[in-house]
Formats: sequence, C-alpha cells, structure tokens
Amino acid sequence: MRHFSSHPFDDDKLKEECGVFGVVGVTDAANFVALGMHALQHRGQEAGGIITYAPEGGFSSAHRFGLVRDNFTRASLMETLPGTIGIGHVRYSTAGSKGATAIRDVQPFFGEFAMGGAAIAHNGNITNAEAIRRELIERGSIFQSSSDSECIIHLMARSIQKNIPERMKDALRRVEGAFSIVAMTRTKLIGVRDPLGVRPLMLGRLGDGWVLSSETCALDIIGAEFLREIEPGEMVVIDAKGIESFHPFEPKKPRFCLFEHVYFSRPDSILGGRSVYETRHQIGVELAIEAPVEADLVCPVPDSGTPAAIGYSQQSGIPFAMGIVRNQYMGRTFIEPSEQIRNMGVRLKLNVNRALIAGKRVVLVDDSVVRGTTSMKIKEMILDAGAAEVHFRIASPPTMWPCFYGVDTPEKEKLLASRMTEDEMCAFIGVDSLKFISLGGLYRAAGEAGGRNDASPQYCDACFSGDYPVAPTDMIVKGFALKAAE
Amino acid sequence: MRHFSSHPFDDDKLKEECGVFGVVGVTDAANFVALGMHALQHRGQEAGGIITYAPEGGFSSAHRFGLVRDNFTRASLMETLPGTIGIGHVRYSTAGSKGATAIRDVQPFFGEFAMGGAAIAHNGNITNAEAIRRELIERGSIFQSSSDSECIIHLMARSIQKNIPERMKDALRRVEGAFSIVAMTRTKLIGVRDPLGVRPLMLGRLGDGWVLSSETCALDIIGAEFLREIEPGEMVVIDAKGIESFHPFEPKKPRFCLFEHVYFSRPDSILGGRSVYETRHQIGVELAIEAPVEADLVCPVPDSGTPAAIGYSQQSGIPFAMGIVRNQYMGRTFIEPSEQIRNMGVRLKLNVNRALIAGKRVVLVDDSVVRGTTSMKIKEMILDAGAAEVHFRIASPPTMWPCFYGVDTPEKEKLLASRMTEDEMCAFIGVDSLKFISLGGLYRAAGEAGGRNDASPQYCDACFSGDYPVAPTDMIVKGFALKAAE
Amino acid sequence: MRHFSSHPFDDDKLKEECGVFGVVGVTDAANFVALGMHALQHRGQEAGGIITYAPEGGFSSAHRFGLVRDNFTRASLMETLPGTIGIGHVRYSTAGSKGATAIRDVQPFFGEFAMGGAAIAHNGNITNAEAIRRELIERGSIFQSSSDSECIIHLMARSIQKNIPERMKDALRRVEGAFSIVAMTRTKLIGVRDPLGVRPLMLGRLGDGWVLSSETCALDIIGAEFLREIEPGEMVVIDAKGIESFHPFEPKKPRFCLFEHVYFSRPDSILGGRSVYETRHQIGVELAIEAPVEADLVCPVPDSGTPAAIGYSQQSGIPFAMGIVRNQYMGRTFIEPSEQIRNMGVRLKLNVNRALIAGKRVVLVDDSVVRGTTSMKIKEMILDAGAAEVHFRIASPPTMWPCFYGVDTPEKEKLLASRMTEDEMCAFIGVDSLKFISLGGLYRAAGEAGGRNDASPQYCDACFSGDYPVAPTDMIVKGFALKAAE
Amino acid sequence: MRHFSSHPFDDDKLKEECGVFGVVGVTDAANFVALGMHALQHRGQEAGGIITYAPEGGFSSAHRFGLVRDNFTRASLMETLPGTIGIGHVRYSTAGSKGATAIRDVQPFFGEFAMGGAAIAHNGNITNAEAIRRELIERGSIFQSSSDSECIIHLMARSIQKNIPERMKDALRRVEGAFSIVAMTRTKLIGVRDPLGVRPLMLGRLGDGWVLSSETCALDIIGAEFLREIEPGEMVVIDAKGIESFHPFEPKKPRFCLFEHVYFSRPDSILGGRSVYETRHQIGVELAIEAPVEADLVCPVPDSGTPAAIGYSQQSGIPFAMGIVRNQYMGRTFIEPSEQIRNMGVRLKLNVNRALIAGKRVVLVDDSVVRGTTSMKIKEMILDAGAAEVHFRIASPPTMWPCFYGVDTPEKEKLLASRMTEDEMCAFIGVDSLKFISLGGLYRAAGEAGGRNDASPQYCDACFSGDYPVAPTDMIVKGFALKAAE
Repeated sequence: MRHFSSHPFDDDKLKEECGVFGVVGVTDAANFVALGMHALQHRGQEAGGIITYAPEGGFSSAHRFGLVRDNFTRASLMETLPGTIGIGHVRYSTAGSKGATAIRDVQPFFGEFAMGGAAIAHNGNITNAEAIRRELIERGSIFQSSSDSECIIHLMARSIQKNIPERMKDALRRVEGAFSIVAMTRTKLIGVRDPLGVRPLMLGRLGDGWVLSSETCALDIIGAEFLREIEPGEMVVIDAKGIESFHPFEPKKPRFCLFEHVYFSRPDSILGGRSVYETRHQIGVELAIEAPVEADLVCPVPDSGTPAAIGYSQQSGIPFAMGIVRNQYMGRTFIEPSEQIRNMGVRLKLNVNRALIAGKRVVLVDDSVVRGTTSMKIKEMILDAGAAEVHFRIASPPTMWPCFYGVDTPEKEKLLASRMTEDEMCAFIGVDSLKFISLGGLYRAAGEAGGRNDASPQYCDACFSGDYPVAPTDMIVKGFALKAAE
Repeated sequence: MRHFSSHPFDDDKLKEECGVFGVVGVTDAANFVALGMHALQHRGQEAGGIITYAPEGGFSSAHRFGLVRDNFTRASLMETLPGTIGIGHVRYSTAGSKGATAIRDVQPFFGEFAMGGAAIAHNGNITNAEAIRRELIERGSIFQSSSDSECIIHLMARSIQKNIPERMKDALRRVEGAFSIVAMTRTKLIGVRDPLGVRPLMLGRLGDGWVLSSETCALDIIGAEFLREIEPGEMVVIDAKGIESFHPFEPKKPRFCLFEHVYFSRPDSILGGRSVYETRHQIGVELAIEAPVEADLVCPVPDSGTPAAIGYSQQSGIPFAMGIVRNQYMGRTFIEPSEQIRNMGVRLKLNVNRALIAGKRVVLVDDSVVRGTTSMKIKEMILDAGAAEVHFRIASPPTMWPCFYGVDTPEKEKLLASRMTEDEMCAFIGVDSLKFISLGGLYRAAGEAGGRNDASPQYCDACFSGDYPVAPTDMIVKGFALKAAE
Repeated sequence: MRHFSSHPFDDDKLKEECGVFGVVGVTDAANFVALGMHALQHRGQEAGGIITYAPEGGFSSAHRFGLVRDNFTRASLMETLPGTIGIGHVRYSTAGSKGATAIRDVQPFFGEFAMGGAAIAHNGNITNAEAIRRELIERGSIFQSSSDSECIIHLMARSIQKNIPERMKDALRRVEGAFSIVAMTRTKLIGVRDPLGVRPLMLGRLGDGWVLSSETCALDIIGAEFLREIEPGEMVVIDAKGIESFHPFEPKKPRFCLFEHVYFSRPDSILGGRSVYETRHQIGVELAIEAPVEADLVCPVPDSGTPAAIGYSQQSGIPFAMGIVRNQYMGRTFIEPSEQIRNMGVRLKLNVNRALIAGKRVVLVDDSVVRGTTSMKIKEMILDAGAAEVHFRIASPPTMWPCFYGVDTPEKEKLLASRMTEDEMCAFIGVDSLKFISLGGLYRAAGEAGGRNDASPQYCDACFSGDYPVAPTDMIVKGFALKAAE
Repeated sequence: MRHFSSHPFDDDKLKEECGVFGVVGVTDAANFVALGMHALQHRGQEAGGIITYAPEGGFSSAHRFGLVRDNFTRASLMETLPGTIGIGHVRYSTAGSKGATAIRDVQPFFGEFAMGGAAIAHNGNITNAEAIRRELIERGSIFQSSSDSECIIHLMARSIQKNIPERMKDALRRVEGAFSIVAMTRTKLIGVRDPLGVRPLMLGRLGDGWVLSSETCALDIIGAEFLREIEPGEMVVIDAKGIESFHPFEPKKPRFCLFEHVYFSRPDSILGGRSVYETRHQIGVELAIEAPVEADLVCPVPDSGTPAAIGYSQQSGIPFAMGIVRNQYMGRTFIEPSEQIRNMGVRLKLNVNRALIAGKRVVLVDDSVVRGTTSMKIKEMILDAGAAEVHFRIASPPTMWPCFYGVDTPEKEKLLASRMTEDEMCAFIGVDSLKFISLGGLYRAAGEAGGRNDASPQYCDACFSGDYPVAPTDMIVKGFALKAAE
C-alpha cells in the first residue's frame, strides 16, 4: 500500500495564496468574518485565522489549519472571538512545510505597539521582504514566522509616528510588491491596495457597518452591499465616524492581475466592474473564433472550465455536455489497493461519462496548462472512454513565467509552455489539437476591445509575457533571470 | 447566536438511503470496498461500514459515522480489515437518531451460525420487517439494532438449511419489499435482487476478482469492467470457482425505480443499459416540448438539474448559463451572526451570479419539488438578483406519495404536490410559471417510446402515481392509507 | 526507537476483571453510576459502559474504551443517559484484543424481550459459557460479542417465563461459575451473587434510592450508606416498592475470594465485615512473625504493599520508609531513546530514594509474585541505589494456579511458583531472602483465628491451593488439568 | 447539574510554576527531554514545550497544553523534533488564561538573531519584567507572549555582542529576580542560575552527553549521573568540546528556596547535597518534639505529608497508618449529581478508611496551610468517619506572604496565616489542636543545626518571614506593600 494525494490536479494549477476579509461596526464580528472567509475559501484552503477586538477582553485570535467550515463553525471557538471589529485570512501553505511551528505563519499577524495593538493580514507578496527582514534582525527585531507579511508589523513597531495608520504608511513606503491589506486597531478597520492594484480589494456596507473583502462573492454571502473597489494605491481607514481615504504612495498606472479573471476569482464575483463569469464565457467565444474545430461535443474540464466551454459551444454551435463528472465528496487521501489501478488518483476526483463520450469528437475546455500532467491524465480518461478525437482549448495563453505577486507557481523550468511551442505541447500531451487563446484575445474577452496595449499594458500579465511590473528583488538576489536578461 | 444546518436543501430532497458494494478475489479487498463506497457516497452520507474476512484473523469489521473519505482512508483503520473478500455499505440515518447506540444500526450486519459466520448489507426496505421482528423476539432472538436488515440475519440463524446460501434463500422467501443485497461468508460473495428489481445491483470483473455494486460509477473508480446487472429475483453466489446464478423467488414482472433515473443515481452511471445523464438530458428535451416558455436564459439548480437544463436549452434554443454558483467547500454548520441575514442558509450553499441574471427572464430547471421550501428560497435569491421573470421547470412529475422502498421521504401531508395542483403550487412558490414533466414524458425520456403502460407499468413510480407494487405491510399496520383506500 | 508499555508491572499482577454498580430511585442516575464506576476503576481500567432507562426515551447506553474520568465526565455524553435507574460496568479487556469490534464486548449487555428490555453486567466468569454458547448458536441465537455474559441474555430471551426476574432465574440455573450480577429492567434493579459468593456485591441506601456495588468504597464516594452484602446465592429485586430477596439456587457453603483481601479490593473497602486495610496490615504482622529478618528499613513496593509493610514494621520494630517513589503522572507509552537505558520501563513508574537506601539492609514488602519479572526489576533498582541487603516479604502465599473466576492470570506454566520452590525463587530473583506468608497465616490475618479449615475451606483459595470450588468446564474441554489429575 | 473541579485541593496549595531540562550530545535528544519533563511534571502540569536543533532541519519546536505523557509520547510528534541537542519546559498557566492565544506563552521561547537562533526556558520569575517590556516595546520590539521570559530574548536580540552566550550575559545583567535558565544555540547548551540561586538547577552526565535539570529525579529517570548543582550566579556553556563555567553577575550570598524542601521538589530528589525525603522525615521528628500530643494514630494527608508523618510517628511512638486513601485515577471533572452530596469534590480525590479511624484520636500531618479550605474539608471527612479527636500538625511555618519568585501564591489577604494567629486558625478550622513547625525547627530539619541566622538567613523564606531577598519591582509598582512598609 502507498498513499497518494487525492487532489491529483492541485499540483498542476496556479494557486492564489490568500484571501482577506474584515468588518467593523457589527455585532459578533467574528461570525461575519468566518462567513466571508468561507466564501473566499477557494483563495486558500490550508489554514485560516481570525483576530477580533472587544473592549472588555482586548484582542482575541484563533489560527487553525484546515477549512473554515471545519474550524470556525464551533461555538466553543467562536465564543472566544468577541467584538464588533475583526479581520480574517485564508491561505495556502506556500512553503509547503506544515510542520511543528508553521501555525505561526498563519495570518493575521498581531503586534503590540506603545500606543496599542494592531493586526494585519494581506493577499499578495512583498518582493523585498527578505532584504527588509535581514535588516530588522540585525537591529534586534525577533520574528515569529517565516511570512513576508511580518516585516510590515516590525516596520510599524519601529516607526516613530504617533498613531497606527501613520505607522502603517511609514512601513508600506518601505515595501515593494503586490499587496491587498486588511488591518485593524482597537477601533479602526484599515484597507490598503498597492499602487499597481495587482490583487483585488472590495468595499461593502452591512447595515451600519463596513466590510473589506478580496472578492464581492464574500459580500454576497453576508448580504452586504457592494460599494466600490479600493483603488490601487489607496488606503482607507474606517471607524465609527465613517471612512477616510488616503493615497500614501507615489501614483502609478494600475496593473490588475489578468489571471484573477481566468481562474483565481469565483465566477460570481465582480472585478473591475465586470462579471468574472461573463469574461470567462467571452473567453470561450474568442477561443471558438480563434481556434475553431469540427467536433460533436464541447465538454468543460470541471469545474473552472465550464463558463468558457459554454461560450465555446454557443459561438461554435457544437452541443455542450458534462462529459466529465466530478465526485463532490473529495477528501484528502485514500489507500491505494495493492493491485495496479491506472490513474487512480484521477478517478477519485473525476469520472468520464462513457456513454456520452464513446465515439464522439470532443472539445475539452480547460482554464490553463501549467505542467501539463493534468491534461495528459484527462486525455487518457477520455480516450479510455472511447472518444474518437480529443481537442484541447485553453482559456488562457501559455503560462511561461512564474508569478511573484502572491501566486504559488512552479519554477520556470517546470512550466510546460516555457520549454515547448504550442505544437510541441500538443504532441507531448498526445491530443488531436491543442490551442491556447491569444494574449490579445484574452484582453478583448476581459473588456479591452482594443486588445493589449503593449506600450503600457492594462493588466499584469507577467505569467504570460514575462513583463514584471515590479522587480522581484528577493528572487533576483536568488538568481532569477528577468526576460530582458535572457 | 443560533445554529442552523448548512445543507438547507437536504430537508427538501428525497434521499436514497443506501449503497452497497462487495468484492471477492482481490488483494486488500477493504481498500477496493472503501473506494467503491466513496463513489457511492451520494447514496448515503451519514455512516458506513466494511466487513472483511481473512483466514488468519477471521471476520473483521469497522462501522463509522461520517464520510468514507474521513474514516476509511486511515491506514491504522484499514490495516484492521485484511482479506481478499469484503463488503461495504453507506447509509443515511433513516430514523434520524444518531444517538448513543445508533452505530449498531450501521450495516453490514454480522451473524455467527453453526456452520460459520456471514455478513450482509442491503439497499432498500423490508416492508414486513416489524412483523417478522416481533415474531422472532417472541421466540427468543436478541436484536442488536433497530434496522430492518437485521431480521434477515435472524431468519438465517433459525433456518435448518446446512449452508449459508440456502439459509439466505429460506430467509428471503419470508421477507417482502425492495432489497438489493450484498452478503458474504468466509469464501463466498453473494448478491441478491428482489423479484421486482426496485433497487439497482451491478456485476463487475476486476482482474481475477468479482465486484458487486449499486451503480456502475463505483466499478469505474476501481477500473473494474461492467459485466451486467443482477437480474430482478436473481441470487448470485461467487467464489474462487466462479459465479453461480439462482432464482429463488417466484418470478414477477420487474418494476425498477424510476426516480433512480431522475435523481438518485450518479449521471455517469448506467441503469438498464442506459446512461443516466442521457435520460436526464432527454427529460430536459421533453420538458422543453411539453412546457415551452419565452426566456433569455436556462439555468440549472445545482448540481442535479444540470443535464436537464442543458437538454431544455438545446431543444428550446434559449442560451444555457450557470446563473447559480455552488460553494464547493460546504460543511455542516456555521454560527449565524446575531444580525438578521435573510436566507443565510441558502447563501452558504449557493450564490446567484447577479451580473448574469439582472434583467433577464430566467428558466430554472430543478429535479423535483418535495416540500417546496427550496424552490421558494431559490426564487427569492433570483428575484433579489434582479431577474425579470422566473420560470420553474421540474424534471419529474409531482411527488405525491411517500416511498417505502428504501427512500427517505416526508409524510404524505408534507409533500407539496399531495396538497396542491400545479397552478396552486405556482402561486404558492410565487413564480411566473411552474411546470412538471408529465409521467408519460418521463417514461419517454427513460427510453419507453410508448410512454407508461398503465395496465402494467414498466417502472415503480409509486411516488408519482401511488401505485405501490408491494404492499407496505408495516406502514399499513401503522395506518397508512393506500390510494385505493382514499 | 521502539515503543514499550509504561506499565511494566501490569504484566506481572493478577488483575481483577470487572466492577459492577447500579442505582435505582435517584435523579440523574447515570451521574451516580459514573462516580461509582470511578471508585471501582481499580477493578477494570480498559473500558466501561452505562445503561439507563427513562420513560420518555427508553433505554440509553454508552460504552467506551478508556477511563471513566475521560469518558463519563462529558456533559454531552451524560445528557444522553437520562433516567432514575441505571447500571454500569468497568472491565479489563480479557481477550486482550481491543480490535475493531471489541467495543461490542463491553458490558452492560442489553436485550429486548417480548415483555420489555433488560440490561445486565457481571463480575466473575461463567465457566460453562462456551458450551452454552455453542448450543444457543445451534438453535439460532445471534451473538453480538465474545463475552461470557451474553449467554445469560440469550438464555433469558429463550425462557418461557413471563417476567424478567423469573427469566433470569431460569437462565442462572443453567450457568456455572462465579458471578456477581447487576441487572435492570425498566423499573427494577436486580442483584445476584453466585451460590459460592466468590465475588463481592454490596447493598447501599442513598436517600430514597438503592445502590448495588462491587465494593463499599463506591458507596462512600456518593455518600451512600452501606447496608449489607448481598448473600451468596441471593437475588435481590429492587423497585419503587422496596427490595425483595430470593434464593433461586441450591444452597452451598460460601467460598469468598481470598485474593480480594490481598490485592483486588481497595484498602478502604469493607469485605465480610472486615476492613481490607486492617487485614493487609495484619498480613504484615503475621509475616514479621513467620519470617523475621535483621534489617534497617521496611519499604513497601508501591502502592499495594504499603499496609502490610506498615504492619511488618510495627511488629518487627524495623523503621518504615518510602524507599521507592511512584511517579503519579504515569501514562501509556514513551518512546525509548535510541541509547540503551537499563530498566527504563521501571524508571517511568518508580524511582528509588537513593539517599535513603544506600548502605541499608532493606525489607521490601510486595503483595504477590506472579511471573517474578517485577521482583527482579525492583531488586536491581534497589541494588543500583546501593542497598546492602534486599529481603523480599510477600503478602500472599505462592500463586501456583490460574484463576477461572473472573481474574486475568497467566497460564499455569508462566506462574513462577508453579515451577520453583521458595528457595529456587529466591535464587532466581537474586535476593538475600524471599519469604511468602503461609496460607494459614493469610487465613489468620483475614480473621480466621484457627487458620484454614482444610476439610471445608472458608475461602476460595484456588490460586494458591489448586482447590477449585467450581469445575472450570470450558477450560477442562480445552485441556486444563486439575490438581487431582496431575 | 453543575461542574466542579476534581482537584479540590489544587486551589489550596502553593504551586511551583516551572521545571526545565536540557541535553546535549545524545542521539534523539527530544526523547530524553520528554522523559526529563515527565519526571519534572509535578513542577508544572498545564503545558510543556520542547525545542531541538539538527543540522539538516534547523530548529524544531512543539508546544502543547496537557501532560507530557499525553503529548510527547506520540511518534508522529517526536519525529518532528530531531537532533542531538534540545531543551524542554513544563509549566503552570500562571495567568490562568488558557485562551485562544495562550499557547504562545508556553516556553521554550525562540529567537532568530543575526548570528543564528537561540531558545530559552526558565524556572522562576523576572521581577522587573514589565518595566523592561514597556521599554522594549517603546523601542520597537514585538512581543509574542505575555511571559516574563520573553524579555530575555528581546534583550539578547538588541545586544551588540557578537555571540549568543555574551548576548545572554548582557541580557541577564538587566533582569532582576529568580531564574534558573536552560538555553541552547545550534551547538551549545547553556545553564544559568541567578546570583541568589533561589531555584534549583542540576548538572548531570549521560554517556558522552550532558544534562541540565531542575531536579535530580529527572537525571535518575534517564540513568544520568548527578555531577553537581549549578552554582548560584554561575553560567555554564556546554558543547562538543566540554563545559565552560562563567560568573557574569556580581556575587551575592545564596538564598535557596526553603519551600522546595517542604513541598515543591520530589522526595527522591537531592537538594543542596541533602535528600528531600530525609529533610521531610526530619521535619516530622522536629514537629513531634515541638508539638507533641497524645493520640492513637498518625496519618498523612496524601501524598505530600507522608514522610513527615512517618517522622512524627517514629519520634512520638504513635502508630503510623494510611487513614486517608487517595484515588489514583483522578481526572479533571465529573458532573455532580443533582442531589446534594456533601464534600463530593473531596470524595473524588480521597476516601477515609472508616474502619481504621472510627473512635481514634488522629494526628493528621500536612505540608502546609494556604487558604485553609483543604484542612476544613479533611477535618470534616475524618470526623464523619467517627474520629474521636483530630490534631493537625503542619510541616511548614504559617504561610503569610506571597512568593514572587516563580511560585503561584494567592494574594496576601487570602493566606489564612496572614489574617489569623495559630489559635485562631485552630478554632476556624475546628480541630482539637493545630500546630505549625517553627521557622527555626524547619531550618534545623533542613540541616542548619543552629537554626535560622536572622542577620543573614541561609535560605529564601519570604513566604514565611516577609523577608524578600530581591525587591519585587513590578509588584511594588502595582501596589504591593513590603513588610517594612506595613
């Protein structure tokens, strides 16, 4: 017997690393935070944390490995998190080391300053965190975690400003990278988005209270009204008196993450004023125009390929069908029987609808190709089921570069598209055809009718283009070569 | 704060009560059984059990509350279940009483007879179990559980036959109802289907071994070849020497459960030689013909309405869209924030894609209406999101009668359709239109081109028609009135 | 690394297998039962069970592995055990197989009869249980467990008597062996002691309620008044109307277990009208007379040797001291460091008070020698600490025969005293002297001034004498040779 | 029903707050540390932590609530703690708040400095910790915990010394109070004792490795040789090359804690070259001389009063007996039955041996009187059992002052002896006589033949005398009045 992961495809997806959520001005804030985190669970499934503040008991916190539903639903835990203000965070275990002390890496982080405590959680990545960390340790700071976020707390602790929002500004001016921050003091909820606005951050209203959230779908779950996005480079400070807006950074042209539209965000969220579902459906339409094929069925690779597959079907006129069925009770690991079962890992997650597929020419629509391992397994299942032809259509351009802005990507060499052309990939995976949407097509689907403005791109598309809007300082120190340097 | 169930719709669905699975002639049988049970998890999520036999250690068993993935994946447990033969069972807690002793109600059951032990698990319901139980207690049998299945073991114990298969025949001739049985002795795997064949039971081949399973999707997960269905009224006895077939019952005309096609079985299973997905797709086609409407979008109620919605869309030409998004991280319970959130239970499971729905005339395709509570909540969500019109199309006829053959249904008075006409239901739910497929249309979609043969119906459709193919003896004793008696 | 048991001596003690407790006529009966079981925990540490009855909910039960304090202290569990009548049981896992199904072996057992249910728990052993079991299985009874007690329930189920006490009489007339039974119906608490009265059973009064308990120390913990012992061969039936006494068995001369005085019972209990502590103290006095020695210190082997050591010290004038200290935080298992640590298992439980022992001639008083392994380890520790001489004095005669009346003893060949004389044992263990109390001395210490009446012994002393008052039928079938047969 | 603590006496004892242990130069260091912590469990039962270092994996740590035996015995945890060097700590939860974040307060603490990491654990109390903490926060340090120990790590982080031992010296020169420290770097095990040597710290040898431990009993459990005590004011640094000794503090006359002899340390430990058991035995002898009484029995209050009771018995000639029996299966909480049971809490822990006590004049020997609540309960039990007279003899002088050097004591007003004279206490508790040993008598029993040197006391006896050898700075800020100020 040996164990294997029951999520065979997780290794073959880019993974958003975090989701953030915060509320102020509502009774039982922690319960709202838990619900918001639950709605953002797709942005981080490994661990979560909540910090709240109540005048009687001060700051309270709970950090747990596992899903929100398995931890933050127990009355015995939630009762330890009183207060009308609170923030929460869901995350992937980026270093992969869920070891003895790793719970210390789970956000939000808390620091006690001379004028009172503050808690902070962020989505994104500080690209010069290691340089700052070394400098702070040299000067006597003690780090609790290996997280990049902790350096913000230490920079704040050493600031000579007299209040926490000012200290946060001090600290943020020192850091580089992509960050959507939700923070809190005893009375104030604070939201910050980096000058490029790479990661999303939404503002909502819930009765007399206020909400900050990575995505609008988490406003929906608690019945909050979506007001607007926090602007790139904006810092909002919210308390009982209302909301104040600051712009502490040097202004830059925004570069929102294009991949949020393709895969990270939930299809029922709204990004940049646009339905994610609509964009994905439109990607399918563009794909059908750019890469048509004669076939009998269009099937999504569940679950993220569905809207694009519907778009492809409607544009092409080829009937849409759920040719691959997902097991909704997926868990962690099963013990593999001693006898050989080919592709057992895949079978635990998916099953092909044999009666539907047999003898058919099938267009499979997937969101991306990372290492290519998933695509090969799915192709095999489809051929085993008797498909006559298999055509892959991919709802994103070839992923050729790693992301350093809060996304868990393999090293460049492991990205199939960094080593092969589209035709080579088609041969490698072994399908009848394989086509990616063009970068221009993706921009059009995302609402940029004129496509990509190469002189000044509207989005961060570094994973496709190698055009990094912020230099990944720490990574360059470690030897990463930028495109220009190749 | 108060708790509420996070599965708001579970109360409003008919629920299959069980799935059965067994293998013989394979190394580490328990691991295959666990995988099969995992693939059958949709047939019973409350508890599961496995019994195996190995010459060195005799019979071993494990019964657990919870999902297969959470219990039967731990090496420390699986190692206690050695052997090359084993059977498993997943179930709902029918009596609802998951109390101190209820684990004793979890199948398979085991009994030691003079000639050796046997284990048994079944899907269905013995309709005269209580009468038999009273008689056996009177004669000195001690029951371990409140399960109807246990009376089979006791009848076998008191049989004077010399081997277990013969004792099982003795016992089964005494029971009435619907039952698909998987049983085992030290060397034999036994499968039985009641004379009407109400519940499914499939035979598969895995290398040199054999498999019995409620559905074909559980053959797929372990890579077993689907051979055939066990015939209604057939008993198969499988051991190292091969398979033997018996027909111990008086023959009857089969009446397979029609609702297995509509909802219970997985869409990737094959029933009666026909793809469940295909039947559901065809139900949508029939519905579009029977109950057309002018609209902008066809949306499924996730997840079971999807194939019928696709069929409706393709027949009607109205575009198909995923207007309602399901949260894939659903768990058990969240703590409701103290402030009122209308329909919070629904929001935990589903979210409406507002940008897609706003201003649109929407056709919602659902599999059934039981109490009507779900339909009302979904209607509200859709209207909140700004839909211009809401039209429900239901992929089954009105559910007017309880099922006594292994399905968890509310009492007759709680079934909306038993109290209201279609029009009254439409007004009650408050939608622009509400249409059910006709019983004839459902038969056609299920492959009976001529529709229902009222003189001798091809299926058991008692939940729609009140035409019960086996008298529900115990229920009649308790006062249930048959249709003829109304 | 390897694991080892942290109870190195447990393998080297005779172990009582059970304690029973029951109450009727008190609110929250289960809480009293739990307290009583806690006070009887020394009689069985592996598992425990409680069954109660309440008119609203019927019979409720909970069976758990582990200590009473770890299970029956949780409000969530205790709330599932309502009622004013209840019985409980603590036990060792006699077969040693705490496997997948062994929880079914934990008493009390429950059976539903035509006239209502009954629960039963016993301390002792049915010596013809296997013969009865075979016969019952032949006739169609299904056994749930491998416990000898279950045959009583099945015999009761098959009785044609019209009420449960009469059925119990029927059943008990069929069984042989030693048994102190506590049973219950919906309204009656029943206590029975076998005709020889081998195991104890006490009757107490708690306000308007009644209590049955293996020992008086469990009456003390709940503040109940000790009324009297249930007589050998007596059956009491207690309900709201009071207590009735029956004598359903053929009268025999009682033979209470002598070892209960030596080791099994708690020192603060009263047996046969006599303080257990006083008897043990008197054993020390007798030992000092029978086996004097010149020495500097008398030390008990903790904890059970203490009263006898005090008696030895007072009779001999040699100062008493706690030369061996017991770690009060003992748990189950530690991981042994990879480097060799001699006698680590012992060190986890005990430590020698080096400063006290060094250079001294030490008398060690222990309760018994079973395999002799413990004695060797303790001798080594004492010598390592620098003792000048080590003299063992044992508070019981040589244990030469296994007990078949509810005590977990090794096979005869593993009992050191069955293979060696006292002098050989002294040489084998390697101490300066080793003396056991004589059987006559033990009888005197237990209050029989005239010593043992060999013609008709006052106690069951089979473990010392081989004189079994009830033939161990099942064991003889398996090949056990009685003394006469040797 | 209501819950109550099952340790009714814990509230009425002074409690040592910590035990420390460390090893270097042995394979599987963590296993030795766990064993050492287990032997020191009586010094802290609420939580424990271990940190180790291995070249391949760096520093590893685990901190857990609960007993050592329940946590640090699991192979899955111990395998995460590799290395040949490690330190451990057991503690009481001093603040009493085992809340959401309190695991952060469990030692050892870890800090990463520019030249590498270090871990530290201590027994004692930094009496100016809060002043230092405020200053450090003002300058930008972020504290992880509410523990006084953490300020040492931060002082070290800010030191400009180039290696860790020098940084520790820098830090320790800033702190006041009582502290026995065990610390480690990647290669060095460090031990420090404050200049007064209030808390114990022992040095041992284990093969080629070295051990530091609060008490010698923890050397015994792993078979290590006891070399010597770390001297007051000494710092030892041990690595592969051997042991180096430093004396970084200004020398002071030592003042070892006198209460360690009375209660905190285990009777099998050696303190100041003297057996703790012997000292306690001698306390009993002194008590019998100072406070004789005519009586029939001398009984210890289990377990700590035993050696003094033996001494009292031997000096007075009054027979020694175990008149009170302790339940060895004590757990946390039972649910109290709804009917009144007087002194149930006591009964869970202790039972009086009625047969022994009835009609007797009893001398009860206890170690101390704190609030007096325990003494009253025990008196009641003894009288309930029919004792003719009850005489308390206490093995320590009246406890009148709180300890600020690492012991959990109630506020001064809650100490019975701070409000009453000996006679008043006797009347309050309601016994026939109550006598404490004199302070001089206690010094004599501890080996100071001339008694207490009032000009320059040999021990810290602040809890008896109010003579605090180090000013409790933080407490004075909070309003505590020294004796001189009264």
